[in-house]
Amino acid sequence: MTQTLTVVKIGGNVIDHPAELAAFAARFAALPGPKLLVHGGGVLATQMAGQLGIPVQMHQGRRITDPQSLKVVAMVYAGWINKDLVARLQALGCNAIGLSGADLNSLPASKRPPRDGVDYGLVGDLKPGDVNDAALALLLGAGCTPVFSAITHDGQGQLLNTNADTVAATLAIGLSRRYPTRLIFCFEQEGVLGADKLRIPHLDPAGFAHLKASGVVSGGMLPKLENAFEALRQGVREIRIQHARDLGPEAAVAPGTTLSL
Amino acid sequence: MTQTLTVVKIGGNVIDHPAELAAFAARFAALPGPKLLVHGGGVLATQMAGQLGIPVQMHQGRRITDPQSLKVVAMVYAGWINKDLVARLQALGCNAIGLSGADLNSLPASKRPPRDGVDYGLVGDLKPGDVNDAALALLLGAGCTPVFSAITHDGQGQLLNTNADTVAATLAIGLSRRYPTRLIFCFEQEGVLGADKLRIPHLDPAGFAHLKASGVVSGGMLPKLENAFEALRQGVREIRIQHARDLGPEAAVAPGTTLSL
Repeated sequence: MTQTLTVVKIGGNVIDHPAELAAFAARFAALPGPKLLVHGGGVLATQMAGQLGIPVQMHQGRRITDPQSLKVVAMVYAGWINKDLVARLQALGCNAIGLSGADLNSLPASKRPPRDGVDYGLVGDLKPGDVNDAALALLLGAGCTPVFSAITHDGQGQLLNTNADTVAATLAIGLSRRYPTRLIFCFEQEGVLGADKLRIPHLDPAGFAHLKASGVVSGGMLPKLENAFEALRQGVREIRIQHARDLGPEAAVAPGTTLSL
Repeated sequence: MTQTLTVVKIGGNVIDHPAELAAFAARFAALPGPKLLVHGGGVLATQMAGQLGIPVQMHQGRRITDPQSLKVVAMVYAGWINKDLVARLQALGCNAIGLSGADLNSLPASKRPPRDGVDYGLVGDLKPGDVNDAALALLLGAGCTPVFSAITHDGQGQLLNTNADTVAATLAIGLSRRYPTRLIFCFEQEGVLGADKLRIPHLDPAGFAHLKASGVVSGGMLPKLENAFEALRQGVREIRIQHARDLGPEAAVAPGTTLSL
């Protein structure tokens, strides 16, 4: 029987803290079975852009990517954060291999057309059907652990910047064709928080609609949850949103917010 | 019979020129048989360090790598140049996958100890026996083309900066255990040039010793040639040093300098 694949997304706010990142890497490396890591890095990319004097433009929590900004995110995500994570995981006995969507054409994207008067620039949109699951299965089947930065490409030589939550959800959907797949979003909060700032243990689409309408959930959490529910609809078995420190082999019982349809 | 593997090193001065880089990528993609690319990027790394206000320290043509400089070379080599090359090659139908030595632990290194009063910092030395040829054979056997940046690791979580010529020679030696291997150094000159500035078609160790003693060959060409002759001694079948524009499927008859023992 095919083992369950665990896809973990780690957010930029954890990556930005060396002690938390080291602890997270150890927890991720200890996860049993085939697994895949997707990392963000927006905080460090924003810092680097600042050091280089490149203005950062955001629209509704998403970065507008001009050619200079693309170079910065490719350097920071695929160069520094990705290789640092791979080296850490290798030291922990996890046979990591860093990938962008361009590598092995693992995650082709298409440049987002301008819409609603907003041109996001060199930003890639993904279709789950385009995940190159054969290439990833080659690596996973050999016991390797892909570590994805959120850099994709258009297949015509152009790198593109893509939202890391979307990368994680798209990979989980695409790999569900081959593996029972669970998707875990790790970040710096206990899970999805209610109006009382307490963790919501379980959330379904009706509950999400309520939180959204009341404004309790906003900002970056909105696309994260939208991505997540869509992934459940498209075949991902289990989705959890939890604090990075709660990741563990006992993930089935660890705290966090479990999503269901 | 096992096909000949071609290992190509492309120098930083070619990478720095978009038109030449595009032409080189097309020539590399068209090479028949299994192949592997190693790229430098020192020129762009020096520019980026300058933009970030990080002083560049060199000793005998080799970069002294403090933690800030390591971050810059990891970003520029493994992030920007590597992913840009991979996306270009994918667009040309070459199934490229970008790697550092940390990825799949493909090229473990050890931090160079201070010697002769010089501490190179976070610089990795390589031993050909340490090439993870099994991991690379997994990729090559599946028709993938590894594209290496000259970033390695110590196996304990530390990334290291390594000379790209040395990476190319070490990989060629290590992979000679599995494939008849030829190694081609592509750069911005016709080959090794004599005192008359004309290309030397063939060079052996005695000829090299003469060029070295007379000062005709100096700077970065010295370690390049030392690496190359050592690679021939350790089993690489053929080594050529040539202009990037002369790379082609007809490599056996293309101009350049062919080395022999």
